[in-house]
Amino acid sequence: MVSCGAFHSFLFEYDTPRIVLIRSRKVGLLNRGVQLAILAYVIGWVFLWEKGYQETDSVVSSVTMKVKGVALTNTSALGARIWDVADYVIPPQAENTVFVMTNTILTLNQHQGYCPDVPDDNTECKVNKDCVPGYVNIYSSGIQTGECVTYNNSIKTCEVFAWCPVEDDSVVPRPALLQEAENFTILVKNNILYPKFNFSKRNILPSINSSYLKKCIYDSQTDPFCPIFRLGKIVKAAGQNFDEMAVKGGVMALQINWDCNLDRSASLCVPEYSFRRLDNTNPAHTVSLGYNFRFAKYYKDPNGTESRTLIKAYGIRFDVIVFGKAGKFDVIPTMVNIGSGLALFGVATVLCDIFVLYCMKKRYYYREKKYKYVEDDELDQ
Amino acid sequence: MVSCGAFHSFLFEYDTPRIVLIRSRKVGLLNRGVQLAILAYVIGWVFLWEKGYQETDSVVSSVTMKVKGVALTNTSALGARIWDVADYVIPPQAENTVFVMTNTILTLNQHQGYCPDVPDDNTECKVNKDCVPGYVNIYSSGIQTGECVTYNNSIKTCEVFAWCPVEDDSVVPRPALLQEAENFTILVKNNILYPKFNFSKRNILPSINSSYLKKCIYDSQTDPFCPIFRLGKIVKAAGQNFDEMAVKGGVMALQINWDCNLDRSASLCVPEYSFRRLDNTNPAHTVSLGYNFRFAKYYKDPNGTESRTLIKAYGIRFDVIVFGKAGKFDVIPTMVNIGSGLALFGVATVLCDIFVLYCMKKRYYYREKKYKYVEDDELDQ
Amino acid sequence: MVSCGAFHSFLFEYDTPRIVLIRSRKVGLLNRGVQLAILAYVIGWVFLWEKGYQETDSVVSSVTMKVKGVALTNTSALGARIWDVADYVIPPQAENTVFVMTNTILTLNQHQGYCPDVPDDNTECKVNKDCVPGYVNIYSSGIQTGECVTYNNSIKTCEVFAWCPVEDDSVVPRPALLQEAENFTILVKNNILYPKFNFSKRNILPSINSSYLKKCIYDSQTDPFCPIFRLGKIVKAAGQNFDEMAVKGGVMALQINWDCNLDRSASLCVPEYSFRRLDNTNPAHTVSLGYNFRFAKYYKDPNGTESRTLIKAYGIRFDVIVFGKAGKFDVIPTMVNIGSGLALFGVATVLCDIFVLYCMKKRYYYREKKYKYVEDDELDQ
Repeated sequence: MVSCGAFHSFLFEYDTPRIVLIRSRKVGLLNRGVQLAILAYVIGWVFLWEKGYQETDSVVSSVTMKVKGVALTNTSALGARIWDVADYVIPPQAENTVFVMTNTILTLNQHQGYCPDVPDDNTECKVNKDCVPGYVNIYSSGIQTGECVTYNNSIKTCEVFAWCPVEDDSVVPRPALLQEAENFTILVKNNILYPKFNFSKRNILPSINSSYLKKCIYDSQTDPFCPIFRLGKIVKAAGQNFDEMAVKGGVMALQINWDCNLDRSASLCVPEYSFRRLDNTNPAHTVSLGYNFRFAKYYKDPNGTESRTLIKAYGIRFDVIVFGKAGKFDVIPTMVNIGSGLALFGVATVLCDIFVLYCMKKRYYYREKKYKYVEDDELDQ
Repeated sequence: MVSCGAFHSFLFEYDTPRIVLIRSRKVGLLNRGVQLAILAYVIGWVFLWEKGYQETDSVVSSVTMKVKGVALTNTSALGARIWDVADYVIPPQAENTVFVMTNTILTLNQHQGYCPDVPDDNTECKVNKDCVPGYVNIYSSGIQTGECVTYNNSIKTCEVFAWCPVEDDSVVPRPALLQEAENFTILVKNNILYPKFNFSKRNILPSINSSYLKKCIYDSQTDPFCPIFRLGKIVKAAGQNFDEMAVKGGVMALQINWDCNLDRSASLCVPEYSFRRLDNTNPAHTVSLGYNFRFAKYYKDPNGTESRTLIKAYGIRFDVIVFGKAGKFDVIPTMVNIGSGLALFGVATVLCDIFVLYCMKKRYYYREKKYKYVEDDELDQ
Repeated sequence: MVSCGAFHSFLFEYDTPRIVLIRSRKVGLLNRGVQLAILAYVIGWVFLWEKGYQETDSVVSSVTMKVKGVALTNTSALGARIWDVADYVIPPQAENTVFVMTNTILTLNQHQGYCPDVPDDNTECKVNKDCVPGYVNIYSSGIQTGECVTYNNSIKTCEVFAWCPVEDDSVVPRPALLQEAENFTILVKNNILYPKFNFSKRNILPSINSSYLKKCIYDSQTDPFCPIFRLGKIVKAAGQNFDEMAVKGGVMALQINWDCNLDRSASLCVPEYSFRRLDNTNPAHTVSLGYNFRFAKYYKDPNGTESRTLIKAYGIRFDVIVFGKAGKFDVIPTMVNIGSGLALFGVATVLCDIFVLYCMKKRYYYREKKYKYVEDDELDQ
């Protein structure tokens, strides 16, 4: 019967705290002021500004790129030569990145064989015993044979077994061979997905038609949604000098920011492009300056031996970096923020209590009203 | 002595609010009802459904892929020809992506030289002065020389200095050259890491043995964990037509979703595959339709001049997109959710107070019981 | 006038709960104890340990890599041969990954034509009718012609139309051809961005000078910030054997962890390197063991026909996996945690009330003090 009675009273009784209501301008205003500040913070900052009622998700993305443009060069080694996409984009396709060669050191007609190494601290020699047969280090072109041979009129260097003649990359062509790359264009196609909301979108917006796409060039002011970028403009927007960057190469970030409020129309979710240089431009770090790599084209001579053209390719790598957060109304973050906002209201009462009970003249009078003292004789417990 | 007494009372006193206990069915039920709703929300929704007691982490992943299959073609230009992996996968390896060539426009035996450009609005001409020496635009094959020369019986075009003959890509072979690519397979190996939990797993599950891997093909119903995919099946699962897609190429997402509850057994954390087409299929956007790129194979002729075969490769790029969230019990989110849940309980009291003090008949009686009025003579402050 | 009075009292009245203050050591200590535990959790764990006052962001990253080193091989098929970067890095550049060939099966001088397939269950034959004209499966080298021809002295296999001679990859060279790759080095340049905080940094720290970069090798003890890695050391740090891994290839993760507390100096935000093997090392899964792919070098013979060298490249792919979280003080998470911390304080009161009202001897006395009972005559409502 007891439990039944307890359950009855549990269901049909309501307990609410007893309140002292103090009629005081000062304390009343203080209390409401603190409450207002908390309310303003919760509603204004958490909900309206930071959208605390939204669940967020990170972007997942796929990028394809296509470069267009041709350049004419005229050098003593190669004669007049046209460079097109198949010549200067290496490798021909990749996922989020494209490399455009802007400068190059070609070493034509290399064969496996013996030749003098290029001169540096480790390879210059006077006599054979300066060279160690089999010596190789991380900067070597090949394996030393132990001979000291003539490199040019003034210098002798250790002979190496290597792809000969070995590459001499001490002088980088300046101005850059493919300086005209400034006028090349990149078409960037980006498809994003917010998996939590099953929301996907492309950077070629529905409002963009085919004829516009054929002629537009991205400009942050006039054409902010055109997905075709002029190389020179990207580099300039990042505060860099294209002619200078073309010589030693570099890495550029083409950043696409997809910050979307999915509580609003999907058509308002649009990409925002920005540009940044990623490799070091600090001339104190010469080892890590610019961007280049080596590759070779292999040929078979009529007699069956293999030869190659070694290409040290300097150029600009454009990395498309996609990031962004999408937000959409969700019950949980809303409730968490409401709940902790309500809890903060308790702060107002605590502050006013301190003021009333410790700072006001009539504090002893208020304490007497608020508190009821109950003595507990510890001994009879 | 005062501070000591204050400390003594701070430690050995306990203050608890005084309560009015109202014996009323209505209010009691209302109060318990609201509390029950809040409890149901906190326990049922936040904890059980949304797993609010879990810390989450995003996936970090590495993917390798391997394509298998051969195809036979028979064209007038090339004769009978077998295409194997080394022929149609370009570049031969990449990180999260693989490109399978399905169609191609070959321009054999190009040399640097002079030849008529392919006809379009900018290149067709009647007399030499229609052509501007040095003219080049973004769609050019090369640099105009200023001559107007015969392209074919009916058309004259401006002469260009370029890789000659220039590519004519106005007609795309249909059906696609490598339509048999439908039967090629891709083996996808995916290794994921949740860094926060130091949990890693592969998509080749421990339950999969070597003989199963040799013969299985992914099927969402019968073989949902087989990591080998038939190209035709992927495309079909995304609601696309392979024969059509093979002609102009395209980009497919092979999505792997790793949603894992790490409070349960690790063996229940398994990949879920899905497929999506990423490039535009809207025929209004012809510029951005399909997927293709150009590359060249370089040869050296017996007399030492360089020639190349230009390949415009249409094909399907498979991007593996890995995403997922892992959750594991953690004290902080649990406490945040309990804390804000408790705060929400205050809402029940507020609602019932409003009901009791403003809506019930005996509201004045209750107010009198709940409140004790203390006047503050503002002037004597 | 009523609303005006209500507004007046809303502004100028302050209500605070009436409190029973129980002077009891037991309950007082219990109450303060529970409160202390909650305070310790909120301040110690949530704020100091887990940095609950911080907003976090995930890293966005770009990576470039450069391999250095040469190796000498001497085989009967190729003779003495030097391998340099252009020979063993395929493709020459990629975004977050680099592949170093360590072993290879070369099939020289392939032409399109007819030849016996390599023997396996599907290709061995005794007479022509064992072979099906046009038969092809996923493991085929080419299309069967229906002839059964001599493969070697003891075995006959079905003839195929394929790139001939077909590759026989049944025996992998052991030890690996380019075992010297152990001494090659990789320079990793990593540029990270925390978009929410607009904070970017490179893994080549400002404190690293050019001469140090020329000679340093990463070592977790002595050179933890050197961005140059010796291949053998990476593999060893992951608990693997380089000589063994070089034979069949593999995939290594070079993990860079950028956990940054942006409330402190930016110079304390430094990368932390770790290494992990990503492909399966379980010998039961032979299909998915190691890492290899095929590519070809194409040549044009003097008579104009195309030939190729097919290369099955075994090697180690190094995937740079960048992850990390940055935290920075922000008002919202701070307030959420304070709010839910405050709410937890309510727990102390609830616990002590239960103790006081249900467990203590003088519970009836306390109940009487705390509660004021108000009967509601349900009928007159």
